[in-house]
Amino acid sequence: MKVQVLYSGGKDSSLSAILLEPFFEVELVTCTFGLERSWENARQAAHDIGFPFKLVKLDPKTLDESIEVMLKFGYPRYGINLIHKEALETVAALGEAAFIADGTRRDDRAPMLNISEIRSLEDRTNIRYVRPLAGYGKSAIDALVREHLEIVEANSETLEKADYETEARSLMRDKYGEDVYHRIFPHKHIQSRVLRRFKHDEKVER
Amino acid sequence: MKVQVLYSGGKDSSLSAILLEPFFEVELVTCTFGLERSWENARQAAHDIGFPFKLVKLDPKTLDESIEVMLKFGYPRYGINLIHKEALETVAALGEAAFIADGTRRDDRAPMLNISEIRSLEDRTNIRYVRPLAGYGKSAIDALVREHLEIVEANSETLEKADYETEARSLMRDKYGEDVYHRIFPHKHIQSRVLRRFKHDEKVER
Repeated sequence: MKVQVLYSGGKDSSLSAILLEPFFEVELVTCTFGLERSWENARQAAHDIGFPFKLVKLDPKTLDESIEVMLKFGYPRYGINLIHKEALETVAALGEAAFIADGTRRDDRAPMLNISEIRSLEDRTNIRYVRPLAGYGKSAIDALVREHLEIVEANSETLEKADYETEARSLMRDKYGEDVYHRIFPHKHIQSRVLRRFKHDEKVER
Repeated sequence: MKVQVLYSGGKDSSLSAILLEPFFEVELVTCTFGLERSWENARQAAHDIGFPFKLVKLDPKTLDESIEVMLKFGYPRYGINLIHKEALETVAALGEAAFIADGTRRDDRAPMLNISEIRSLEDRTNIRYVRPLAGYGKSAIDALVREHLEIVEANSETLEKADYETEARSLMRDKYGEDVYHRIFPHKHIQSRVLRRFKHDEKVER
C-alpha cells in the first residue's frame, strides 16, 4: 500500500513518514508554487533520511488567493489552510497512491483541514487521508524525534525549509512591503529542519 | 520507551498496538470491574497477536456511576466516556510507563476524551497519552486490519470481548431489567474480536 506524505523537510513531516514506514510504501512529496527553490531543502532532507522524493507544482493562483485571505483576516492561519487544502487536492488528483498523509499534529491549528473537508476529500477522490501525528501531543512527538532524528531549530526567517509559509512570506514581502509583512507574520516562529536519521544501533547507544 | 495500550481484544486496540510496536515497548492492559470474566477474551487475543498482557482492576463505583449517567441521558455515550476516563487515570496512576495509548479512531464519538481532559491528564500525571488511530478514518483502518489481522465480527450481544460495554450492559440488565436495558442500548452494535495476526510472509502472499 503506497502513501504519499506531504513533506517540508521539518521534523513533523519526517516523523510522520517514519511512523508510516513499517506499514506502507512511503514517498515524500513536496509542493511548490515555483517562486523559490526552497523545495531543494526538502529534497535534501528526504535523501538524508532515506525516502524517495517527488516534487509537485501547485497553481500560483492559489498562493495569490492565500495572500488575499491572510490580508483579510490579518493573520496567516486561513491562508495557510487554503494552500494545504490545495496541496492535498492536487496530490490526491495525481491518483498515484491509495493513501495521502501529512505531519499535522494533535495540537496544530494550521495547516489543518476540518473533519468535513477531510470527508469531502476522501469521498470525492477515493483517497484515504491519514494523519499519523493526529494522536500525539508535543511531548510525545519530542520524545520520538529525539529517538530518530537529528534536527536543527531556528527562526523561520533564517532557516531554509520548504513549508507553505516560505513562499507565502516571500510573496507577501515582495508585493506588500515590510510593514504589511510584519503585521501579518509578527511572531518569531521556530522551525525545524532534519539533518539526518539515527541508525538503529545509535538509538540503542543513546 | 514503554507504552501501555488499553486493550479490549477488538481490531482497533489490536491495530493500535501493532502501529506502536516498531517504536515502543508495548504492553496491553485490560481493565475490569471484576463483575464478569470477559477480560479473559482480551488476554487470549493479546496472546494470539503476541503482546504481553496485564489486567487492571477498576473501582466498581465507577461502573455504578456510569450506569446512572447512561440512565440520565438515555444513551450510553457519556457513561462509556466516564469509564474510559477512569481507565486512563487508573493506568496512568500505576506509573509503570511513560506513555499510555488506546484504539480510539478519528471518527469515534465514544469512548473519547476531549482535548481539555487529555491535557489535564497529561499535566497532572506527566504521562503522554497517544492515540495512534486518531488520524485514521474507517476505510484506512479497514485496509490496515485486512493486512495484519484475522478477525471475527458479530453483534456485541453474542460476541464475547472485553470492552467497557460488556460489563455495563450486563449490570444494566441485572439491575434495571430488559426494558430499560433495551431503551439504553437499542441498536445492533457490530463488534470485532481478533483471532490472530498474519505473519509477514502471509501478508505478502495475500
